[in-house]
Amino acid sequence: MAATYKAPLRDIRFVLHDVLDVSRIAELPGYEDATPDIFDAVLEEAAKMCENELFPINRSGDEEGCTFENGVVRTPAGFKEAYKTFIEAGWTSIAADPKYGGQGLPKTLNFVIEEMICSANLAFGMYPGLSAGAYNAIAAHATDELKQRYLPKLGDGSWSGTMCLTEPHCGTDLGLIRTRAVPADDGTFRVTGTKIFISAGEHDLTENIIHLVLAKLPGAPEGTRGISLFLVPKFIPDDQNASGARNGVACGSIEHKMGIKASATCVLNFDDAVGWMVGEPHRGLQAMFTMMNVARLAVGMQGLGIGEAAYQGAVDYARDRTSGRALTGAKYPDQSADPIIVHPDVRRNLLTMRALNEGARALSYWIGTEIDIAHHHPDPATRQAADDLVQLMTPIIKAFLTDIGFDNANRGVQIYGGHGYIREHGMEQYVRDARITQLYEGTNGIQALDLVGRKLPTGMGRLLRRFFHPVDAYIAGKKGDAALKDFTGPLAKAFQRLQQATAGLAQKAMANPDEAGAAATPYLRMFALVALAYMWTRMAEVATAKIAVGEDVAFHTAKLKTGRYFMEQVLPEHLSAFAVAMAGARTVMALDDDEF
Amino acid sequence: MAATYKAPLRDIRFVLHDVLDVSRIAELPGYEDATPDIFDAVLEEAAKMCENELFPINRSGDEEGCTFENGVVRTPAGFKEAYKTFIEAGWTSIAADPKYGGQGLPKTLNFVIEEMICSANLAFGMYPGLSAGAYNAIAAHATDELKQRYLPKLGDGSWSGTMCLTEPHCGTDLGLIRTRAVPADDGTFRVTGTKIFISAGEHDLTENIIHLVLAKLPGAPEGTRGISLFLVPKFIPDDQNASGARNGVACGSIEHKMGIKASATCVLNFDDAVGWMVGEPHRGLQAMFTMMNVARLAVGMQGLGIGEAAYQGAVDYARDRTSGRALTGAKYPDQSADPIIVHPDVRRNLLTMRALNEGARALSYWIGTEIDIAHHHPDPATRQAADDLVQLMTPIIKAFLTDIGFDNANRGVQIYGGHGYIREHGMEQYVRDARITQLYEGTNGIQALDLVGRKLPTGMGRLLRRFFHPVDAYIAGKKGDAALKDFTGPLAKAFQRLQQATAGLAQKAMANPDEAGAAATPYLRMFALVALAYMWTRMAEVATAKIAVGEDVAFHTAKLKTGRYFMEQVLPEHLSAFAVAMAGARTVMALDDDEF
Repeated sequence: MAATYKAPLRDIRFVLHDVLDVSRIAELPGYEDATPDIFDAVLEEAAKMCENELFPINRSGDEEGCTFENGVVRTPAGFKEAYKTFIEAGWTSIAADPKYGGQGLPKTLNFVIEEMICSANLAFGMYPGLSAGAYNAIAAHATDELKQRYLPKLGDGSWSGTMCLTEPHCGTDLGLIRTRAVPADDGTFRVTGTKIFISAGEHDLTENIIHLVLAKLPGAPEGTRGISLFLVPKFIPDDQNASGARNGVACGSIEHKMGIKASATCVLNFDDAVGWMVGEPHRGLQAMFTMMNVARLAVGMQGLGIGEAAYQGAVDYARDRTSGRALTGAKYPDQSADPIIVHPDVRRNLLTMRALNEGARALSYWIGTEIDIAHHHPDPATRQAADDLVQLMTPIIKAFLTDIGFDNANRGVQIYGGHGYIREHGMEQYVRDARITQLYEGTNGIQALDLVGRKLPTGMGRLLRRFFHPVDAYIAGKKGDAALKDFTGPLAKAFQRLQQATAGLAQKAMANPDEAGAAATPYLRMFALVALAYMWTRMAEVATAKIAVGEDVAFHTAKLKTGRYFMEQVLPEHLSAFAVAMAGARTVMALDDDEF
Repeated sequence: MAATYKAPLRDIRFVLHDVLDVSRIAELPGYEDATPDIFDAVLEEAAKMCENELFPINRSGDEEGCTFENGVVRTPAGFKEAYKTFIEAGWTSIAADPKYGGQGLPKTLNFVIEEMICSANLAFGMYPGLSAGAYNAIAAHATDELKQRYLPKLGDGSWSGTMCLTEPHCGTDLGLIRTRAVPADDGTFRVTGTKIFISAGEHDLTENIIHLVLAKLPGAPEGTRGISLFLVPKFIPDDQNASGARNGVACGSIEHKMGIKASATCVLNFDDAVGWMVGEPHRGLQAMFTMMNVARLAVGMQGLGIGEAAYQGAVDYARDRTSGRALTGAKYPDQSADPIIVHPDVRRNLLTMRALNEGARALSYWIGTEIDIAHHHPDPATRQAADDLVQLMTPIIKAFLTDIGFDNANRGVQIYGGHGYIREHGMEQYVRDARITQLYEGTNGIQALDLVGRKLPTGMGRLLRRFFHPVDAYIAGKKGDAALKDFTGPLAKAFQRLQQATAGLAQKAMANPDEAGAAATPYLRMFALVALAYMWTRMAEVATAKIAVGEDVAFHTAKLKTGRYFMEQVLPEHLSAFAVAMAGARTVMALDDDEF
């Protein structure tokens, strides 16, 4: 049987309304219209679009892939039609600024829709996803003239955007880029160089493609402090803002990849292309980070999206496929064998997927609401506090959600057994598609370094306290609650170990930065598990209260059972991460480079 | 840069000669010729074959895949030629019985060669691998007439073999198979039914293909006690033993898979095909298990093979690719950036791969030598003891080595960053190829159940004691050795936890079999990590002694450093596995089937 997908609206509503109370968002200036009812109405429409338009072309898009011929990239069958439906329904302009024709809805809502899109069709989601990144960078850093010219078209989806960072010899280390931008007499620039791995760099979905390109001005300082950002359209808009003359940028080839085959990954050659500077000279990297941070969170949602789709496929199969009998005796004696969902090891895989997905959903939506608060709250201190938390959690959400997305895709395949390895069932595609999310927008190793090297030291641990203080207060407030002891007990112990690891790391890293580098990955993992344990405890509190008043007892009971599984069977992974994070850099650094 | 492969002969020699002392094998009756010198000479030739013949067609074989047209399967370009070279050099007959033209060399040697073949070209290795399985089943269970007719041709590789178990509706649960075998007047049978997932089921490498098929006789008992095994050749050999008339078996299609695309995975339709019974009526599953057990160990070697290839590719890339500077300051100041091998997180990935590979190599080769002892030792008690250990370790080697093979392939991709996702570099192929090893020959969940449900209870823990007693004695003997304390200390603690988990599991499983099922996977993982810690301690002992006498100090120093990394940074994973194995089935079984 082939994988299916239904947007998990019941769980989404639970998180948004009952755990996070998004009615708070409608109290923020500018978001008055974003009431809980509107959330639900928009999400129901988004669910239909994902289930009916995007999911049906996911497998076929993977089989066909993009094609490249004479500089032209064609997306797979159905993508143009689906994209047209997508933009006509306004899905690209959900969170766009009303000043430029957008709907001005909260980022939280966008987060949820991103999860659904990525469950349904990760490759498709790349196109509007990149446009949103370009939109944000232009909105934050470009001149009013550029905003007027580009934001409406990016917002309504008739044009799309890209982020052009990587070059053949450098990805993470952008200080080494060689693309040059030379000033012209008219205030524009001429951009020349080669960029690789450019998602949506060329395709047939939109009239125009707006590239945001990192390049160096003549005489720019060495390294990352000499990089500027340029807007380079594929077609230079004329005065009526229609796509005009073809600019000096061409697609040289597309990559043959492991997955997301319907997403065109392009080599772009810029040859004296006309560009406009975005932001200040030599400050391009900072401007690009506006896109990168949003993009990193969006990539985290890709991981969650794939994990959810894999879970749904796996549950369907585990109910349908029969093999053997329950260890305690036949549970379906009228069938020739029991469905495999009765087997403890199958349940372990399913429950691990589910507990991670639902925990990750709660964590990421929470951070979504904090983004809205950071942007719209009237009180600057509240905005700062929210932004601090978002900064802290960005590498964790990017790395952890993509790691579990990949792992969950693999658990899905495992439940299908040999059938999971066959393309027609759709499960192995999730594995191949998910794999990129651990690599792009900064590998997950880079995310871990960002957490320990940048986010922890910021303001002497100020960002960290935005998470530690509320968790500490929450545990203190709930520890006497007998109904929650299966949750608060393990949470408190794990949280205490996280504090211990944090203190140890801070101390050791001051003496030797390799200590931070060596501990980064297990530390991030441990942090994420504790964050999920916190969200699961909050969810358990809500579920317990709902059961007490008899509200949707079936849903909340399953939620509690899944939460208990998380605390007993998933959270213990932090013990190993703790031990490894505390073990120190000694053995990591002991080998000489030539001893490998 | 594309991945490369050199057989790790230095490390192989270390394990075979210095850790396991394979000169003991030449003392076994029948293996007198298998001296250490012969081992080395054969392995050097095998290395050349793998590096020069098989590895060069690995990537191209993946790109081209097998094709199916009008019932005919074609392997990718170069496979026929490579196979011809392979069999002409005698590689299929290494461990085959001299009575039927084989070379009669030890299984240990075969194990090592299998690792190399799977590093170089996993898909290619499937063809001789399946033949070896068929060879073993015929050698163990068939009549002399069948042996005379089939073993020489299977041994010299001019014919190949298959294992036909799975049907569309059942894989693991073979009691449900529907393929029927009706006796004919001449003592043969007529086999009818459909088998799926038949590796090497049809191809163009050999003159004939010998299928070993599970089927039911008329009136056979229900379930697994009513299954018989039949030999069904594609062409029925004539009296001169040349391939004669085409038999009633045809390939209906080949699967489109995630990986091992150069290995033909076939649907086989048997339609009144002439077959010969192998072994006793209704005892086919037992006979098939002769193949399965060998095949499971061989699949473990596939995992190790891929892990080794991934490590080599990743190290090459980590030395070559430059990005950023070492956290403690530039280590290669003459370059514009340091190679990424200086970064702690890159080292973590590389060292984890290496520590797992080298530990797994030692463990699996050890079990290889025990197979030779089990088959050839003059003393029955010694044979039994060796066989017990092999039985115990088979599910561990299959599941753990394939899990780490897949994980290591992914670590390799991670080190390549975005480049790892591009097909031309070859790293993502390792991920796709490795993924099948966790699924076939019994999923890794099934292996874990085999360990806790069959192997642990056998003889009231007799199999288990074959491992626990020597480890216990070893720790007791070495605990005073100050030079080894970085190894014996962590080993002793982890071993004690394994004993505790074993006792807890035995007790709980008696009351409720779901307890065994729920703990199986983390228990197997923990067991494997402790087994690797034991092998690492033994390797550290040897390396320490070699360094003391000044023998190849560079190699043995790197070995010690890698071993310390294992004990400090990898072994702690057993803490989580222990906690989860001890947590019990409660939360695993709590959800009703319809609550998922």
